[in-house]
Amino acid sequence: MSHIARLFVDEPLLRDQPLDLPDDQSKYLLRVMRLSAGAMIRAFNGADGEWRCELMVTGKRAALRPIEQTRQQSASPDLTLLFAPVKKARTDFIVEKAAELGARRICPVITEYTQTSRVRTDRMRSLAIEAAEQTERMDLPEIEEAAPLATVLSIWDPAKPLIYCDEGGDAAPIQTKVSALLGKPAGILTGPEGGFSPRERNMLRALEYVVPITLGPRILRAETAVVSALTLWQSLVGDWQNAPYLPES
Amino acid sequence: MSHIARLFVDEPLLRDQPLDLPDDQSKYLLRVMRLSAGAMIRAFNGADGEWRCELMVTGKRAALRPIEQTRQQSASPDLTLLFAPVKKARTDFIVEKAAELGARRICPVITEYTQTSRVRTDRMRSLAIEAAEQTERMDLPEIEEAAPLATVLSIWDPAKPLIYCDEGGDAAPIQTKVSALLGKPAGILTGPEGGFSPRERNMLRALEYVVPITLGPRILRAETAVVSALTLWQSLVGDWQNAPYLPES
Repeated sequence: MSHIARLFVDEPLLRDQPLDLPDDQSKYLLRVMRLSAGAMIRAFNGADGEWRCELMVTGKRAALRPIEQTRQQSASPDLTLLFAPVKKARTDFIVEKAAELGARRICPVITEYTQTSRVRTDRMRSLAIEAAEQTERMDLPEIEEAAPLATVLSIWDPAKPLIYCDEGGDAAPIQTKVSALLGKPAGILTGPEGGFSPRERNMLRALEYVVPITLGPRILRAETAVVSALTLWQSLVGDWQNAPYLPES
Repeated sequence: MSHIARLFVDEPLLRDQPLDLPDDQSKYLLRVMRLSAGAMIRAFNGADGEWRCELMVTGKRAALRPIEQTRQQSASPDLTLLFAPVKKARTDFIVEKAAELGARRICPVITEYTQTSRVRTDRMRSLAIEAAEQTERMDLPEIEEAAPLATVLSIWDPAKPLIYCDEGGDAAPIQTKVSALLGKPAGILTGPEGGFSPRERNMLRALEYVVPITLGPRILRAETAVVSALTLWQSLVGDWQNAPYLPES
């Protein structure tokens, strides 16, 4: 049931080139997992693939010695999540799920009805790393700094369709729109509780690259809309034709 | 932005037949929402449609007088979620999301790797009511008592396909299997952290009504698998061709 521990490391992974682990990872391996010198660990850094490593211990400090590359590097599909932050626990959830569901970039977007004043990008990065470790993805999602909706749209590449989760009710159901986006990088935009303002809705609908969609007859909470929209995209035009990667126990 | 408050009531809704609200709902309307006599409330009971009601107040007690039926009764699609309970916050989340995503029945299932000893059906019912109120659905999901997997399977109607979220890796991707289930009631079965045991996997795969599927190349947490599988079913063969219901503000 339990797999070999998997860590993201922010260092090059090269055969027999040991790398020191920071305090939090040392503590996790030695005190929480209670591993000792010689234990096997999996490590990835988003560039050099995944490596089976040997744990080395000096006092309270842990280090890894890469032994063998076990998986090649690969990138998640080119999907960007633009989301309006909501309350803390639900924002945490959005970031965790976007990382699990393979978003390549995660951008907090401030909209008119956004109630959250403080967006903790550092916290989002930690959550994304933890989810990436657990979900067996080979890259980390990039977490961008929060920016106002108008700014984000002004620099959006118009060649990329932006799937806009519109609670307005008169858009097409998402499952009828996504299949046409096969083979293209894309974005998904979700709003805060209360949705987008009339001004924002007009602005979005005037943009040619925006694909307004609905997510069924029930009103979904912000974080549910994120998971549903990411699921639909990944399953219909993303990488869900691939089988899950099963690490050895 | 804010809609007329919507409450589930466990009483018949009949024109001009006032109904007393229990303490928690009285407190919510009078103290949290700070509504006073004459305010408009929406109420549904899963049988008589949705009614616009007038709030009546006597001291600390609130009552509703149904004035006009604003929506007819409708049932959510015939979809049953069988899920293995996980840690508390994540189990809460599963129940909330299953209610939002229109599951008709929610059944906690005890599997070999289920770590949770206590399943609080009463708490699940409260969460499901709150989610049903928010999501504009007209019925409540039924929450069944927890039962062992073998028991649940022994009474399952074999005419109903059971979509089995199998982490084993050799099943077909969900999006290739769901469309064939159009027009049939169905179930979705998700496992605990750690998945199903080899014995359970064999038992499930031997059943003709079981449809094993995978949910993409990344390993999803239990609660993410629930949201993703419900989303796929609702969007491809459920009721997502329907537009969202927008209550008046």
